[in-house]
Amino acid sequence: MANKLLSAGLVLFICIGLGLNGRGQGPMDGSDSAFLRKLADVVLTDGRAYEDLRVLTKKVGARLSGSPGYYKAEQWGLKALTDAGADKVWMQECMVPHWVRGGKDSASWVAANGGKRHGLDVIALGNSEGTGPKGLTAPVLLINNFEELEAHKDAIKGKIVFYNYHFNPKFIETFRSYGDAVRYRVFGPSMAARYGAVAVLVRSMSHSVDNNPHTGALIYNDSFPKIPAVAVGLKDADWLADAIGHAPGAGNPIRVYLRTQGQMLADTPAHNIIGELKGSEPSNQYITVGGHLDSWDPAEGAMDDGTGCVQSIEVLRALKAVGYTPKRTIRAVLFANEENGGRGGEKYADEAKKKGEQHLLALESDAGGFTPRAFSLSLSDAQLAAVQPWIKLLEPYGVYAFNKGGGGSDVEPMEKLGVVVGELRPDSQRYFDYHHTRNDVLEVVNKREMELGAFSMAALIYLVDKYGWPAR
Amino acid sequence: MANKLLSAGLVLFICIGLGLNGRGQGPMDGSDSAFLRKLADVVLTDGRAYEDLRVLTKKVGARLSGSPGYYKAEQWGLKALTDAGADKVWMQECMVPHWVRGGKDSASWVAANGGKRHGLDVIALGNSEGTGPKGLTAPVLLINNFEELEAHKDAIKGKIVFYNYHFNPKFIETFRSYGDAVRYRVFGPSMAARYGAVAVLVRSMSHSVDNNPHTGALIYNDSFPKIPAVAVGLKDADWLADAIGHAPGAGNPIRVYLRTQGQMLADTPAHNIIGELKGSEPSNQYITVGGHLDSWDPAEGAMDDGTGCVQSIEVLRALKAVGYTPKRTIRAVLFANEENGGRGGEKYADEAKKKGEQHLLALESDAGGFTPRAFSLSLSDAQLAAVQPWIKLLEPYGVYAFNKGGGGSDVEPMEKLGVVVGELRPDSQRYFDYHHTRNDVLEVVNKREMELGAFSMAALIYLVDKYGWPAR
Repeated sequence: MANKLLSAGLVLFICIGLGLNGRGQGPMDGSDSAFLRKLADVVLTDGRAYEDLRVLTKKVGARLSGSPGYYKAEQWGLKALTDAGADKVWMQECMVPHWVRGGKDSASWVAANGGKRHGLDVIALGNSEGTGPKGLTAPVLLINNFEELEAHKDAIKGKIVFYNYHFNPKFIETFRSYGDAVRYRVFGPSMAARYGAVAVLVRSMSHSVDNNPHTGALIYNDSFPKIPAVAVGLKDADWLADAIGHAPGAGNPIRVYLRTQGQMLADTPAHNIIGELKGSEPSNQYITVGGHLDSWDPAEGAMDDGTGCVQSIEVLRALKAVGYTPKRTIRAVLFANEENGGRGGEKYADEAKKKGEQHLLALESDAGGFTPRAFSLSLSDAQLAAVQPWIKLLEPYGVYAFNKGGGGSDVEPMEKLGVVVGELRPDSQRYFDYHHTRNDVLEVVNKREMELGAFSMAALIYLVDKYGWPAR
Repeated sequence: MANKLLSAGLVLFICIGLGLNGRGQGPMDGSDSAFLRKLADVVLTDGRAYEDLRVLTKKVGARLSGSPGYYKAEQWGLKALTDAGADKVWMQECMVPHWVRGGKDSASWVAANGGKRHGLDVIALGNSEGTGPKGLTAPVLLINNFEELEAHKDAIKGKIVFYNYHFNPKFIETFRSYGDAVRYRVFGPSMAARYGAVAVLVRSMSHSVDNNPHTGALIYNDSFPKIPAVAVGLKDADWLADAIGHAPGAGNPIRVYLRTQGQMLADTPAHNIIGELKGSEPSNQYITVGGHLDSWDPAEGAMDDGTGCVQSIEVLRALKAVGYTPKRTIRAVLFANEENGGRGGEKYADEAKKKGEQHLLALESDAGGFTPRAFSLSLSDAQLAAVQPWIKLLEPYGVYAFNKGGGGSDVEPMEKLGVVVGELRPDSQRYFDYHHTRNDVLEVVNKREMELGAFSMAALIYLVDKYGWPAR
């Protein structure tokens, strides 16, 4: 697109947000639109989120629960919240699982009849037990889904099960594809171990065009042996499936060598990092906004969930920068241990319950720093209908829907206490290109996309603080 | 975001598209939703657009008007349209400007009093005349905007004018920032030449965090000398402004050396590449969808506008693949010479007029292969209101608005003939990170984002073909 844009065609960009009709009037007064404009300007022109993220990703880096990086990240969080102008900043201790990779993962497959070795790019799944330093070699069995696993259960003993379940391209929201496919990563190892498998390879959960393997947590069922498990990238998965032949249960001529050194150590203390802007009303009411501070180990945890952390900090900073005094206390929480335990979220809800805090909303950003499109909110249908007019205020900034749904996993324990939870729903197409891979680095984050997310979160929190929720 | 997504929270992703209310009933029948689902499946599971783009970017590459790359791209386009199943494929000749860069651009600035040279990363503006192989050196004058240019017109003679006008971060749509800033690139050189400037540096039109300079066309005013002009990246622009001091008209101690070798040669023939699916009705009615085939020279023209080309080809392929027989003839047009002349678009409209073709819609994709959000359409207010119900069909795929506005620049000549024109409006945040730079390569295109754009275009064309437009 070039210089002709100068001409009449440009006028159209001013028109975003028009074309709505008949959504009824909301509780907003005329000042809200001007306030949100001011808030957006502060985030888009003087925002701190990107610089915060640069420090977190480049100076702290990977920060899996229990790793030295996590404790460095705690210190970063305390400083970032203080610098953002929080009235109070503190640490909330909880015990977290402590899994270590233990060394470089490796794998290769060997064709029958003395065929050549081919390297596979693998990454051990989080929480998995290793093969030990010598590794193991076994025939590999191609399994496309759990139904096939059942059908071939008698052929599994002594084999490496290769789950080649594909990320479904027909879902528009990639998180639906993830929800559909992630069962194979989380439960697949123990389900295969039940029938005597010695290890598991799982096709990575991604639409990406590269070959990076995607790690992520598994959950062992204690009734079965804890067998090693790795993810393979999409190209390797396709090559392996081609080599084996795509029929379920096929694979005997192909043997795979696998070496991983993962180990679960004893639980260790870690902390949620919390900062708050004190509310002006003498109530015991709170609004929580957060992301999770821990990340997987292969990269910098930029999208998962560095962006959620720095956006949450930016919410405090921006509201303060425009001179807004909240009625309720607004808290930014950097949760511990989302990736392989969820202990930080549980701790936060436990403490809130103990202290009898009344939370109006617990909002999370844990779907990447992409352009915002919607919020999911655990409201009733009547409440959702009643807050539709807020969408008119957000649409000029690209947020066009409130969807019924839950929050991110860190605020689920709050939902169980009856708190309204929500999550920022940014554009989802690129998230699983980076998720849990060595590609999750600062360079894949677009500064403005992330800033628009931070602004949207601040805007929603402003509206909830000002108006509360309509009756259920 | 990790395995906890398995739990209740996931349900929410199914709910996108709900929560609408009272937008009234449209002309659609129940089969449209099922048809669009089929169309989306074909694009998202068996799409050819990404592979087409790979060949265009990696086997053809840069393709400025008149360059060998452009003629190679013409052959690529003929083949791609044929492979997509077009009933007829042909070339439409037009004469295009033929600008050549002539060699590597270079620049550096020198502080006063024998200070050290600092390299500047520059790129000559398209259509610009070079300094000649020896280059030129002159004091540089910082000018923040055209008002300052007027105020300092007596100090300009013999100087290099450095336009440091910033891309405005407050506009949410980055194309508004572009429309606001691009005047300095297009008209700035002649406006400075009018007051005796010997060359121009212009701050690149971008929000990016890198230092890549962005080329693009200038338009000389023939009344003034055709002085050399280059773009500088944002970091260099900031460094230069810091070195000079930010006061308008400041800059005398800083001298800049500049060498560019651009040259405008005689016009040369090129072609629009056109393929069509024949309509079933014996009318003379058409729907046009297109992108432009030419690109700037520093990279592969992936986003500008490889994606628009392959999306347009995919529209034909997908409609045919699902067995749709259009009522009107549907044409995919790969326009020549959008970047520095617009001759392809003019030629296409001239021919349409000559032949008395009735075009229902001329739709362009030239804003990048990002996730679609809206369409701009040159409809009346009444028509826009009447087609709002179509949004219900598109919203599950992320398109949530029809905005009043024009089409891309290639279809503007059609608009002058009274044709309804439109443009796909994808998310705009990343476009000006790549636009006209060495970064505009295949690797910055997300396959699915581009596919969703292609699907949305096909969906709109299906609806227009089936129902036509409501009365003005």
